[in-house]
Amino acid sequence: MKPIRVYLAGPEVFLINAKEIGEQKKAVCNKYGFEGVFPLDNEVDTKNKSPKELGLCISEVNEDLIKSCDLVVANLTPFRSPSADVGTAYEIGFAHAIGKKVFAYTNIAAPFTERTVKALGGKVKRDSDGKLRDTQGMFIEEVELTDNLMLDGCIHASTKRLVVEEAPADQLFTYLGGFEKCLSAAREMIKSGLNNKS
Amino acid sequence: MKPIRVYLAGPEVFLINAKEIGEQKKAVCNKYGFEGVFPLDNEVDTKNKSPKELGLCISEVNEDLIKSCDLVVANLTPFRSPSADVGTAYEIGFAHAIGKKVFAYTNIAAPFTERTVKALGGKVKRDSDGKLRDTQGMFIEEVELTDNLMLDGCIHASTKRLVVEEAPADQLFTYLGGFEKCLSAAREMIKSGLNNKS
Repeated sequence: MKPIRVYLAGPEVFLINAKEIGEQKKAVCNKYGFEGVFPLDNEVDTKNKSPKELGLCISEVNEDLIKSCDLVVANLTPFRSPSADVGTAYEIGFAHAIGKKVFAYTNIAAPFTERTVKALGGKVKRDSDGKLRDTQGMFIEEVELTDNLMLDGCIHASTKRLVVEEAPADQLFTYLGGFEKCLSAAREMIKSGLNNKS
Repeated sequence: MKPIRVYLAGPEVFLINAKEIGEQKKAVCNKYGFEGVFPLDNEVDTKNKSPKELGLCISEVNEDLIKSCDLVVANLTPFRSPSADVGTAYEIGFAHAIGKKVFAYTNIAAPFTERTVKALGGKVKRDSDGKLRDTQGMFIEEVELTDNLMLDGCIHASTKRLVVEEAPADQLFTYLGGFEKCLSAAREMIKSGLNNKS
């Protein structure tokens, strides 16, 4: 039987020990009977490439890896902003559109609205239309979701599995508790045949 | 002939005068023979919905709007971070995966690496592996692209039209110069039949 391949999306690719984390994630995948696929798995030939060409090539390789997978487990832990990494957001949009099942986790439990207000240094005010707005007049989502509604909407439409945990502060991008819960849920869904129904 | 529909992705939906900006964008679309489709076009019935349900419903409506369009013009101007709005990043991933042609513009000309270093308060250092890293050891992309390589990669693979302009500081999310250049490029591509080739 062909192994079920899981694309491991998330900003941990930026870590100094990214490959090690990738191997840890793959080991957890194995435990649940999956084959983990890490964005850095396919080495990109850097020879004779300008920095731009290299970047564009990595993007192409990653899209091909997503296409080659059955599921995506995305790390939506906020990255350099109140929201998930934009690369990861892009990848789940890409995956969901072509029917891949998308699971997600975040290692920060604080609500999205609270995170956004904090990132704006508290410079927000309630406007006459009832919306909370920043100094540029742009509103802050208050629909009690985990991140921008397009991200929550994706997971809700795909698998309804968005695991929220609070990782130790020094393990924001390495803690794998929520990640493992996604894989466990994926395994359960496959067992119950839900994978083919929704 | 069926009109060519353009989905207008971008963080301007958060503006207090979002609908007005939407109408301005649609007028520019008309000028180039396109029908502009703004995320707020389909009113969502808020009755008997919890905030969460409302958020998830808007997400579903937006995905349906993207599917109903032929092209996407995305505003990738950095939003509350050094990068584009995550909702917009998600939407271009979704659109590109199902073969919609994606054009983009940004109203901030400063390079991605420079924007990221600034957002990190300059707290970065060059590591022994040659990479520029933040205080968590996570590297900063230096491949001379406009944003995270997945976003640039999308536009490169789809249309190669990512227009970079520097808008007046008070018009970051309302300036439409780059937007209009995208539409002009889209019109040219359709005229030359390139729309069906790449």
